[in-house]
Amino acid sequence: MAEERVYTACVVIIGNEILSGRTQDANLAYIAKKLNARGIRLKEARVIPDLCETIVATVNEARPRFDYVFTTGGIGPTHDDITAECIARAFGVPLTLHPEAKRILELHYRPDQINPARLRMAHMPEGAELVRNAVSRVPGFRIGNVYVLAGVPEVMQAMIDDLVPTLAGGAPVRSRSIACQLAEGVLAAGLEAVQRRFPDLDIGSYPAFRRTGYGVSLVVRGVDETRLAAAAGEIADLVRSLGGTPQEEPPT
Amino acid sequence: MAEERVYTACVVIIGNEILSGRTQDANLAYIAKKLNARGIRLKEARVIPDLCETIVATVNEARPRFDYVFTTGGIGPTHDDITAECIARAFGVPLTLHPEAKRILELHYRPDQINPARLRMAHMPEGAELVRNAVSRVPGFRIGNVYVLAGVPEVMQAMIDDLVPTLAGGAPVRSRSIACQLAEGVLAAGLEAVQRRFPDLDIGSYPAFRRTGYGVSLVVRGVDETRLAAAAGEIADLVRSLGGTPQEEPPT
Repeated sequence: MAEERVYTACVVIIGNEILSGRTQDANLAYIAKKLNARGIRLKEARVIPDLCETIVATVNEARPRFDYVFTTGGIGPTHDDITAECIARAFGVPLTLHPEAKRILELHYRPDQINPARLRMAHMPEGAELVRNAVSRVPGFRIGNVYVLAGVPEVMQAMIDDLVPTLAGGAPVRSRSIACQLAEGVLAAGLEAVQRRFPDLDIGSYPAFRRTGYGVSLVVRGVDETRLAAAAGEIADLVRSLGGTPQEEPPT
Repeated sequence: MAEERVYTACVVIIGNEILSGRTQDANLAYIAKKLNARGIRLKEARVIPDLCETIVATVNEARPRFDYVFTTGGIGPTHDDITAECIARAFGVPLTLHPEAKRILELHYRPDQINPARLRMAHMPEGAELVRNAVSRVPGFRIGNVYVLAGVPEVMQAMIDDLVPTLAGGAPVRSRSIACQLAEGVLAAGLEAVQRRFPDLDIGSYPAFRRTGYGVSLVVRGVDETRLAAAAGEIADLVRSLGGTPQEEPPT
């Protein structure tokens, strides 16, 4: 059987508000799950400030390295919304008024509501294609392999929900998760042995110290359901052999 | 008055579980706020997988560019905890048993509980200094300007709380936030004018579409309280002049 093509992605989160700690990013996990289900692997994410040189450099570094680059943030009408012009600069193309984006604004706003700030949102790099926004109408866009999305979670989610089914992907990445109360230090040797027997899967150990007490989730990820089930079975056996009680957790 | 030295930081989040969407990162915002208060500016964050070459390359790219680099994740006892050995490789030094870290393990575990997996947690790059862990004892470490912290939020928070007061920083970055219900497109021109009058401050506009309705937060950030108050006053006046009701929000 031929190796299946693996599709990769990078997310670039543009926003001073994330780096200042004001806003807790909620977009990365949402995008990651949607991409997983589509068989696209999120390989890296970057959080960068609203600085044009940084945006240009980051996007130009990412786009040859990944199949898809998604940016979030900075596509509104205010002075700190500079993503579109930076993406144009990254691609070396002019920023132009996109006729279809302008028409969407004209449907959404009364004529007296359309001012230069709002018209900025219809300016996009030459050659960009629109990404639909079912929430607040103002579209995102794609140029090359770069998808420029909103930062507001409700809008970003609507855009990614629309977008992801249209993207080429490979086999979905699935996971099985076994929880138990054993210490990681007790599990480590056996878990490593399971990982060695399943080099095609990715096994992670994630402890948590919660109000309800200590617990650890042993997570197996991969594309082959049969292999996942076999590895999850071995992990459950390992937990039992060490005196623990394995509990299968719902997939995330 | 001489320009005050600006201290900068980068956070490197190491973890497949963040990139798979399984775990929502909670560390970045926590670190950012602590650094702000200490006068250290978080300039970039990266989320990378548990892959040694990626960890080495990312850390080596970041450490000459920022005053401080903080990594989170990958310092436990299991096979997927590879951060210490990757940091040693990044610095070109051997990974060695740190006597003080070993003593901490010996105080924390009974002799029969100390196995090779747990002893791995006392292996650190040669020359590393310990970072205290008040929660689960096993320490993090510093080498050069790179601080290697746990990924589990409760542990990471204890480490950063201990660490940040010991770091050199500049003037704390403060913020004022004015909320209102006006559309960003209505505010944009006036807000840009305020930003032009206060080039020393960073003004951001953050809309939210919540169950309770639409709202926007206009956030001013900077080090000079007098300038912040003046800019916040102008923004409140702007909101009023456009028919809105400005509401000061608690600083974040």
